[in-house]
Amino acid sequence: MKKFEEKTVHSTEIYKGKVVTLTVDDVILPNGKPSKREIIHHPGAVAIIPITKDGKIVFVEQYRKALERSIVEIPAGKLEPGEEPAVCARRELEEETGYGAKELTYIQSFYTSPGFANEIIHLFVAEDLYKIEEKRESDEDEFVSIIEATVEEAEEMVKTQQIYDAKTAFSILWVKLNKM
Amino acid sequence: MKKFEEKTVHSTEIYKGKVVTLTVDDVILPNGKPSKREIIHHPGAVAIIPITKDGKIVFVEQYRKALERSIVEIPAGKLEPGEEPAVCARRELEEETGYGAKELTYIQSFYTSPGFANEIIHLFVAEDLYKIEEKRESDEDEFVSIIEATVEEAEEMVKTQQIYDAKTAFSILWVKLNKM
Repeated sequence: MKKFEEKTVHSTEIYKGKVVTLTVDDVILPNGKPSKREIIHHPGAVAIIPITKDGKIVFVEQYRKALERSIVEIPAGKLEPGEEPAVCARRELEEETGYGAKELTYIQSFYTSPGFANEIIHLFVAEDLYKIEEKRESDEDEFVSIIEATVEEAEEMVKTQQIYDAKTAFSILWVKLNKM
Repeated sequence: MKKFEEKTVHSTEIYKGKVVTLTVDDVILPNGKPSKREIIHHPGAVAIIPITKDGKIVFVEQYRKALERSIVEIPAGKLEPGEEPAVCARRELEEETGYGAKELTYIQSFYTSPGFANEIIHLFVAEDLYKIEEKRESDEDEFVSIIEATVEEAEEMVKTQQIYDAKTAFSILWVKLNKM
């Protein structure tokens, strides 16, 4: 897994933020030449495909400042330092949807933007859902609304670009292949 | 698409790089409270699912400095300023794999990390491939090797974490659903 390795000569931290850290790394390429790489460091995240008893997927709609628009996604959230992905998945599911899950199953993990960021998403499917009585407090800067939709309805939302997000696009195909 | 809009009060450019630009935006949340958003601006990209006449997917293996390891992905690359995604898709396919495509079909687009970045990927499927005689020059800082694999072999590579990338994970499911 080190094929074509780029050795780091020096790493300069440009910015350390609440969510991301940016470094610019001086590297030596496999052909011996020097180059620079701009790297975004991210704590990692989880995403959850919640499936209701009648086979609908629970999505959240939220404003994404990076896009200057709201989009519809599966519930997701950043890992707290040291937090187990499965613990984070239950927390985010409850915070964002008000659902708990009797069954939470790990699917797979993937990097989202390996060209410039180390963000990894751990993906789970949540089934046997129940409404929790006292909804957990959301993050104070998070405003979401819930949309429950069949796979066919979700595919319509892809066409109309309401769903416009890689992890969510993957999840719709995954449900089609594994739960229908 | 402006639900829960966060109004920008001020945007500070922290870093303008070759690939990414980082701004920190002061915003007003829907509840009237101030907050900050760290935003990565990216030129956008294309990715291509090349399918050979015998039904194999053509992948590229390359070192990803952000991950400090090499991974196996479908071919992809950044848009040049003003470049049409379909033109970029043909260019990247030829540069990275040495294949041209008689048929190039747009599938869909998605954001990769909407929580902090505006990177969008436009995804294409490339079929009726032919080897080009004079391989295009790759980007000078890009080193890739080619792997042709069936869907079953690709699913094995997901399990062993050689494939560990959202667009590629999506693409494997897409081929399974649409080309098998």
